[in-house]
Amino acid sequence: MSAGWFRRRFLPGEPLPAPRPPGPRASPLPYRRPRFLRGSSSSPGAADASRRPDSRPVRSPARGRTLPWNAGYAEIINAEKSEFNEDQAACGKLCIRRCEFGAEEEWLPLCPEEFLTGHYWALFDGHGGPAAAILAANTLHSCLRQQLEAVVEGLVATQPPMHLNGRCICSSDPQFVEEKGIRAEDLVIGALESAFQECDEVIGRELEASGQVGGCTALVAVSLQGKLYVANAGDSRAILVRRDEIRPLSFEFTPETERQRIQQLAFVYPELLAGEFTRLEFPRRLKGDDLGQKVLFRDHHMSGWSYKRVEKSDLKYPLIHGQGRQARLLGTLAVSRGLGDHQLRVLDTNIQLKPFLLSVPQVTVLDVGQLELQEDDVVVMATDGLWDVLSNEQVAWLVRSFLPGNQEDPHRFLKLAQMLIHSTQGKEDSPTEEGQVSYDDVSVFVIPLHSQGQESSGH
Amino acid sequence: MSAGWFRRRFLPGEPLPAPRPPGPRASPLPYRRPRFLRGSSSSPGAADASRRPDSRPVRSPARGRTLPWNAGYAEIINAEKSEFNEDQAACGKLCIRRCEFGAEEEWLPLCPEEFLTGHYWALFDGHGGPAAAILAANTLHSCLRQQLEAVVEGLVATQPPMHLNGRCICSSDPQFVEEKGIRAEDLVIGALESAFQECDEVIGRELEASGQVGGCTALVAVSLQGKLYVANAGDSRAILVRRDEIRPLSFEFTPETERQRIQQLAFVYPELLAGEFTRLEFPRRLKGDDLGQKVLFRDHHMSGWSYKRVEKSDLKYPLIHGQGRQARLLGTLAVSRGLGDHQLRVLDTNIQLKPFLLSVPQVTVLDVGQLELQEDDVVVMATDGLWDVLSNEQVAWLVRSFLPGNQEDPHRFLKLAQMLIHSTQGKEDSPTEEGQVSYDDVSVFVIPLHSQGQESSGH
Repeated sequence: MSAGWFRRRFLPGEPLPAPRPPGPRASPLPYRRPRFLRGSSSSPGAADASRRPDSRPVRSPARGRTLPWNAGYAEIINAEKSEFNEDQAACGKLCIRRCEFGAEEEWLPLCPEEFLTGHYWALFDGHGGPAAAILAANTLHSCLRQQLEAVVEGLVATQPPMHLNGRCICSSDPQFVEEKGIRAEDLVIGALESAFQECDEVIGRELEASGQVGGCTALVAVSLQGKLYVANAGDSRAILVRRDEIRPLSFEFTPETERQRIQQLAFVYPELLAGEFTRLEFPRRLKGDDLGQKVLFRDHHMSGWSYKRVEKSDLKYPLIHGQGRQARLLGTLAVSRGLGDHQLRVLDTNIQLKPFLLSVPQVTVLDVGQLELQEDDVVVMATDGLWDVLSNEQVAWLVRSFLPGNQEDPHRFLKLAQMLIHSTQGKEDSPTEEGQVSYDDVSVFVIPLHSQGQESSGH
Repeated sequence: MSAGWFRRRFLPGEPLPAPRPPGPRASPLPYRRPRFLRGSSSSPGAADASRRPDSRPVRSPARGRTLPWNAGYAEIINAEKSEFNEDQAACGKLCIRRCEFGAEEEWLPLCPEEFLTGHYWALFDGHGGPAAAILAANTLHSCLRQQLEAVVEGLVATQPPMHLNGRCICSSDPQFVEEKGIRAEDLVIGALESAFQECDEVIGRELEASGQVGGCTALVAVSLQGKLYVANAGDSRAILVRRDEIRPLSFEFTPETERQRIQQLAFVYPELLAGEFTRLEFPRRLKGDDLGQKVLFRDHHMSGWSYKRVEKSDLKYPLIHGQGRQARLLGTLAVSRGLGDHQLRVLDTNIQLKPFLLSVPQVTVLDVGQLELQEDDVVVMATDGLWDVLSNEQVAWLVRSFLPGNQEDPHRFLKLAQMLIHSTQGKEDSPTEEGQVSYDDVSVFVIPLHSQGQESSGH
């Protein structure tokens, strides 16, 4: 059994490029970074782990056995839309050390069996070049590991202590923590939120130092202590597919879904628009003929719509313009959260995008230990290229059609990932309406939960 | 059949005060305002409508019959917690005129049958005196009527037009409106949002002019064109109870539920805290002994928790302090949305509460026309006093226990409202755990949907 990862940038029949090295300033890390391979025939599986440059021992601390689902498989094909791939991915084992806080905050050297271990999968969909996505794939897991190690004492406690060093200053401190409902999972959520922000800062520094530009979305799944955490900043998506259930595990952050937050910021800081944009939303861009008419509009405080009489300032280009896939922030960007973009400006102006972007993800938690897991329960993570042409229901239908008949195939999750990609290419047997075709990059992880449930129960 | 409204401020056995007139500056309006009555034996029903000061004809435009569910019944008992009731309510028929926009925007005099009619129920839970709640009960429906009349051409169209006067400047305008997914219900939502804000401004002006203070929450239900709109600003709640379903129709806005918005504002405008408060959240208020320790905290961008080393500024009083019912904004207010409070300041300081409060409601829409309505399907609206001791499930259990056995009783919705109130008084047959008692005001509307469904289908 393996976690299947598959990415495709080609239309059938197109030539495949030669493998490329990672982008500049990317250093090798103890994480399996996606490789550039031809075709989709490479074997996934545990054996693959031995090819990682400096892989940690792939063992379950509790059971001492190889973790079948940790053997992630990656396949990347460069569509030559840019010299380097703009999409990047990373997956691997998270080994979290315990630290003892003294005067010097020294690390306690503990043997590997005492590590708190988790697993990590991440998709980064770059724009404006591959640099941010490569940096994110090389950096985010390290940021996360550090953030988790900083709170590991709270993670392994029955309840996170008010004070990290365990000193109890007030006897009712545990009660205060209890009343706030603070659990270990809140520390993981906090660590993910901080890690995204830290990674964003690293990317900002690195891009500036190397004179590069760009940004990327980030979708991360972390399995830790029997729970699956899904952190999302951008327009990728993760869903849980079970026999009788489809559950969204992430929500997209685009100029449309975050309209009110973005308009609110422009309301508070109008100088961010430099007099070039209107923060108001209209059904279309207004023109001279609309002056003096009452037209549909909405402002930052409105979920509904109303009418306003058009003034001259309403004729400016809208802060958010277009619908659906075409919606753009400041006429430039299709996502409203992500990493990087520190230097991004509206074409031919000095108007910055970054103030409107958030690097902080939204985190959802799936309590895998509480699910009565079936063999075919999976999480599907994919970039927007998949979801543009396949609905959650169509993906679930493909999952349920494929997995039950292939239970003995050790590569079935890889093959499922490949099949999902192929279904976006307008094949005859595709479940998309009238064979819809995705011309966008498509990257997919299929993560089986059954192994995870077994593993978690051992912790 | 009648919509039952019941309110109680007394513990059993307490003396009842004499009836009081409405507060100062409150003028009579064509809306039934709650009366001050002793006990709960007054007869509700359609006959009551004739006692309204200047009631409009209670007729269904489509069927020309008396609307049974429009005969709202109100009972108010003043608990003498303040001289005047702090809770107020209003209910009645909304008659929305059509206007023709010309140079003068004149009203077209249409006969009553051509009115667009709806129904309106509202609960206002005051604090710092009754003035804001009384003003809201006297004003909000007028604001809403005006807002709806301003967009009524869009409401009655198949699709709201891009331009209110119907002039089509661009031939693809309907397509732009379609692509944005703008429907008539979005205009009602927009009208509710604007009406709340306008009413808030009226209250601010009126309170200032009369030298009064105070604020109130507002929960409004509007039935219009086969849909029920529930607009909420504060900590009251509305739920739909059906035989097999309990559906929340509103969400509470308190310092806890709006923590991130409030912290974000303090992050953007730190001067609002005047150096007296910390915007950070801790499990308890920190003290000198915590200095230098790493304690649990969260800031505006965090859903999860993390640890930080305590600095001197962290020892200030928290922007949001306390848990659950005890949570307070700036140590002062238990709600984060509502009307009024323009003059409210933190005790002995010049720190204003108003910048942190929103008057804009969240609006949910129930498509009553799409429900297969049963006789006993109701919406229960109540102030926080009810929900503090009864869960949604307990209220639903009481509804389902009472209504089926009383289908012939024309006062059954009133009696149900009364029974819900009594269930918060710790009676033996109460479904609350260990006979929990509410010492807060409790106000309840029970709105039967079956009549509405019949009525709506005629539109």
